[in-house]
Amino acid sequence: MSELSPALRERIENTLRCLAVDAVEAATCGHPGAPMGLARPVFELWDRWLRFDPTDPAWPLRDRFVLSAGHASLLLYSLLHLFGFDLPMREIERFRQLGSKTPGHPEYGHTPGVEVTTGPLGQGFANGVGMALAARMARARFARDGAGPGHHHVYAVVSDGDVMEGISHEAASLAGHLGLGNLIYLYDDNQVTIDGPTRLSFSEDVPKRFEAYRWHVERVDGEDLDGLRRALDAARAQTERPSLLVLRTLIGRGSPNKAGTSKVHGERLGPDEARATKENLGWPQEPRFLVPDDVRAYVAERGRAKREERERDEATLACWRAAHPDLAREWDAARARRVPADLTEKLVQGLEGREDATRKHSGSVLQRLAPVVPWLVGGSADLAGSNNTTLEGGGFVGPGAAPGADPFAGRNVHFGVREHGMAGIANGIALDGTFLPYVGTFLVFADYMRPSIRLAALMGVRSVFVFTHDSIFTGEDGPTHQPIEQLDALRVIPGLTVFRPADAVETAMAWAWALREARGPVAFVLTRQKVPAFKREAPFAPADVWRGAYAVREPATSPDVVLLATGSEVPLAVQAGDLLRERGVAARVVSCPSVELWLAQPAPVRRALVPEEGPSVVAVEAGRGETLRRLAGSRGLVYGIDRFGASAPLPDLAEAFGFTPQALAARVLAHLGR
Amino acid sequence: MSELSPALRERIENTLRCLAVDAVEAATCGHPGAPMGLARPVFELWDRWLRFDPTDPAWPLRDRFVLSAGHASLLLYSLLHLFGFDLPMREIERFRQLGSKTPGHPEYGHTPGVEVTTGPLGQGFANGVGMALAARMARARFARDGAGPGHHHVYAVVSDGDVMEGISHEAASLAGHLGLGNLIYLYDDNQVTIDGPTRLSFSEDVPKRFEAYRWHVERVDGEDLDGLRRALDAARAQTERPSLLVLRTLIGRGSPNKAGTSKVHGERLGPDEARATKENLGWPQEPRFLVPDDVRAYVAERGRAKREERERDEATLACWRAAHPDLAREWDAARARRVPADLTEKLVQGLEGREDATRKHSGSVLQRLAPVVPWLVGGSADLAGSNNTTLEGGGFVGPGAAPGADPFAGRNVHFGVREHGMAGIANGIALDGTFLPYVGTFLVFADYMRPSIRLAALMGVRSVFVFTHDSIFTGEDGPTHQPIEQLDALRVIPGLTVFRPADAVETAMAWAWALREARGPVAFVLTRQKVPAFKREAPFAPADVWRGAYAVREPATSPDVVLLATGSEVPLAVQAGDLLRERGVAARVVSCPSVELWLAQPAPVRRALVPEEGPSVVAVEAGRGETLRRLAGSRGLVYGIDRFGASAPLPDLAEAFGFTPQALAARVLAHLGR
Repeated sequence: MSELSPALRERIENTLRCLAVDAVEAATCGHPGAPMGLARPVFELWDRWLRFDPTDPAWPLRDRFVLSAGHASLLLYSLLHLFGFDLPMREIERFRQLGSKTPGHPEYGHTPGVEVTTGPLGQGFANGVGMALAARMARARFARDGAGPGHHHVYAVVSDGDVMEGISHEAASLAGHLGLGNLIYLYDDNQVTIDGPTRLSFSEDVPKRFEAYRWHVERVDGEDLDGLRRALDAARAQTERPSLLVLRTLIGRGSPNKAGTSKVHGERLGPDEARATKENLGWPQEPRFLVPDDVRAYVAERGRAKREERERDEATLACWRAAHPDLAREWDAARARRVPADLTEKLVQGLEGREDATRKHSGSVLQRLAPVVPWLVGGSADLAGSNNTTLEGGGFVGPGAAPGADPFAGRNVHFGVREHGMAGIANGIALDGTFLPYVGTFLVFADYMRPSIRLAALMGVRSVFVFTHDSIFTGEDGPTHQPIEQLDALRVIPGLTVFRPADAVETAMAWAWALREARGPVAFVLTRQKVPAFKREAPFAPADVWRGAYAVREPATSPDVVLLATGSEVPLAVQAGDLLRERGVAARVVSCPSVELWLAQPAPVRRALVPEEGPSVVAVEAGRGETLRRLAGSRGLVYGIDRFGASAPLPDLAEAFGFTPQALAARVLAHLGR
Repeated sequence: MSELSPALRERIENTLRCLAVDAVEAATCGHPGAPMGLARPVFELWDRWLRFDPTDPAWPLRDRFVLSAGHASLLLYSLLHLFGFDLPMREIERFRQLGSKTPGHPEYGHTPGVEVTTGPLGQGFANGVGMALAARMARARFARDGAGPGHHHVYAVVSDGDVMEGISHEAASLAGHLGLGNLIYLYDDNQVTIDGPTRLSFSEDVPKRFEAYRWHVERVDGEDLDGLRRALDAARAQTERPSLLVLRTLIGRGSPNKAGTSKVHGERLGPDEARATKENLGWPQEPRFLVPDDVRAYVAERGRAKREERERDEATLACWRAAHPDLAREWDAARARRVPADLTEKLVQGLEGREDATRKHSGSVLQRLAPVVPWLVGGSADLAGSNNTTLEGGGFVGPGAAPGADPFAGRNVHFGVREHGMAGIANGIALDGTFLPYVGTFLVFADYMRPSIRLAALMGVRSVFVFTHDSIFTGEDGPTHQPIEQLDALRVIPGLTVFRPADAVETAMAWAWALREARGPVAFVLTRQKVPAFKREAPFAPADVWRGAYAVREPATSPDVVLLATGSEVPLAVQAGDLLRERGVAARVVSCPSVELWLAQPAPVRRALVPEEGPSVVAVEAGRGETLRRLAGSRGLVYGIDRFGASAPLPDLAEAFGFTPQALAARVLAHLGR
């Protein structure tokens, strides 16, 4: 690779800066400062180091580039455009417009070459850790003798905001613990945040903090090319420590009056300063969105060269395929998310009538999944035993690995008490595309993970969230640990599918759905306590679970009431239904393992089971139950809990909160006016 | 203070250990390990250093003790009992039972002497930072010449889990930045978590990390009394740095077969090991819950001595009161949360018909509040300008303070990009009892703060959460920054009151409610964009806002439809109502600034405005709107958004998502079948 002339390099950097200026001016809003300050180091990274194929953004062996500082989106868009990704200049001209490929913050699945949706700070930081972990796990599982997948690097640009956010602490601590040498982060130390100079709120010693996490840390001047190259070389030489390059940069570099200030962070320069900036950079005022010919030619050529490099890599990969056909097949199957045709049958076999906590059913299903879905990996935030998330015999990643084993050959990850980091890392693993991750904690701590769950839903990545201890029946740990509002809070996230299964069959079908059917994230909501077995007396096939709701008891006569329940409240509703029958009230009992799937059913199907008119509907859930109102209707009743719980043994809680068959039956009778 | 004999000290510590063993055995569940491992250092802290009055747990000058590791609750309960707080032994015997004062995790407001509800890890860590900040701000504001309030210390016991959680990073970084020398944390470095040895998931260098935050750090053996005293002395000598004492302890100390293992963390010892433990400690097997007479006598005497110390402190305080009557009055008024009788009138005066973004209305109200409610303090997570949260002329806390000023004399805090830490710190400020805190960020980032918002609600503390940029009309920043589900997710938290005001008057009344009426946390949900002014044509008094909903337009004839809207959708509904009138449809338009307050109204009041039968109700909100279904009823319609937003200018978004008067009116007509 020939050395770029300083003059051409400067023109390239100024192209990137002025594209940011022009696009923000055209949109009249945006974040020009970071792209202007980062033009040199990030272009250098893309030009010289980053491995990708602009014609195939999904090439599995590519290096990953995560723009955790998502507000710097224009820098990414301009690089994608110049290097030859399918992102025409007209899209950059339409920055932040409806339907353009260039939204305010980068969106995965929306723009070719965007690896991950970023903007909410800290998320990209954790996603990158997940991608790096997935790469190391893929290498351990599939690569042999230095050949095969998982040898790429994960780079990210992270900002002050990213390193201030708690999730970056959690993810960085785990990355250091696991020794992810394939992770290289460029920290944009521009000393400015939205409120003003960083020193107003931030004076920690970031390099020292990351050294404490066992990262390799170097300080570099973002404009010092030689220093940057040395630092990148040194970072790439690290195999057992992630690297943080602390880049001193000047936000808004090139703007004569606003560079180095918070004014240039999230506001347009304005016509005068835009003009002054171009003048200052020796850049023509017109045309806007200018890419000089030599700039275009050089960068496009580099894009082609990278594509050729990729072809050489494919040749090496072909040798690996030839030498290790089994591994190659397994790798392909993982990336294609292939499951056995009879997966569902295998999972549900013999489960009918088993009595246990649904978290334990989930744990049993996992053991059935382990051998047949080898690309399933997972872990828990220090609650593996309680969440029943360990794949037995799957081995542990990191210091929990068996002596002598590759520390990344395992399938179980100890995430530590780091729920938010865990969720962000899970999204990164899912985005990598080799493994499907599931991660567990108590349902009440879903709150800690919520920003990452939202992003999984927004991106449509298939992270699986396993939440146990799902109601007041968590018991003696008390209201701090008893979810009330969490189920509703999850159900209102667009694109997230929530299952609250009632028994082993429903739990198995929920897992089968996540593995076979899901096109986005899935959450399982599982009990701590044993759930009484109930007998399905209405006609039933396991696939009914995927409809979201179905009858478990159908009265001989036309029903007077429909009791619709979820999870552990299904057997309660069955028992209450029996009591009601004794009082001459005919109850249909409906299990509703997934509100989302049920609402996706055609209206006539829904009305046939849960009538809008006629018999009253009583929706039963040991939680707030607000999202069940749509099913109950205004003539119906939501039998839930609208206050916090209490620390007590389960039978006392059932009594105090009215979750006994007698209390439920009495309330139903009152509601029906009988 | 005379030196305690080693033998008696050991008996006291063993009393604490065996109370934990007995209580957990009686409950058959709980966390014995931490109380057993921490008995020595924590008793030493309480005995020798902590200042409190067991007969008056709310004494404002007391030191605060935060058990961030809330699962160690028995240690706290036993200390409270022995030192003479109103917590009889029968309550410890009823550990984790329904209605006892000794729930699984400590609960504020439930048990005398419990400063804060803890258990969800990391929260207590941040709460303590808030308490320490509040103390320093009180000292700067009220104390003179070393006398007056705010000179106490805030101590906390934090665990591995606490320091792993991201919120601890955020709070620690800010505590170091602000130089909170009155903060002393004991880190229980017991090297065990639930999953096993800490090294499975955690190998960061915690002391180095906290040094990077600019904390004073010392390592101490938890059993080494002299070392502990030296370290506590050194920590108390720090005036400009918070202190972390890294205590090497043995979890489950005393248990011969389980000490030092994860088995003793969250499970009962079991009868055999409980017996072996008592034998090992030379403790009688019976009676259970034994407190030897000399132990009881010594500790009770120490409690009395502390009460006497308090009386001496009160004498000093009386001198301060005499010397500074104005400051004393202001301090008393703050702690009594006194507001001017005419506060509400002052706030709403002249606001009718003003047109602006509701976040800007909120900013204006804040300026009116600033002089009349001096105990109001606040800040933002690096979005002060966007959240309109700065009290003009109120000065800044920390390095943003005016040169020469006491850095804690200001009222505005730069929280940095630390939403979760900010919320936890706000709760700590509220718990301190002097200042009422409000904290701001974008609504979409409410997700980052959710665990702390929940705890504010569970505790009933009056933190105020200011959320701006409340819908897709955040605009070009795109779906990552556009809330869809957040409003619903907040409304389902029991005990949280959410306001989404539609104009300046509603915004002012929301603030007035938070300051005058609230008995728990309040959230304001405010627009980024300008909201068109609308004229109230129905009879209106500002106090109607506190009913939660009221008519802004009443048709001349009986209504055919009720358009119920919140926030920025109220003027939209008004305009749609006008279009409907042209089509011969009589619409009542209802503004619903607070669903919670509305649902608290008597049913007849609610039915008079929003009928359950008769005219259809259409609830309009630029969000998921799931929690409005209860108001719309099953014959009604929720006109909301059930997918993520898009990056685009506002008019385009309004068109694309159907939030124009024309689109709304058309949908209403279709719904009515006209």
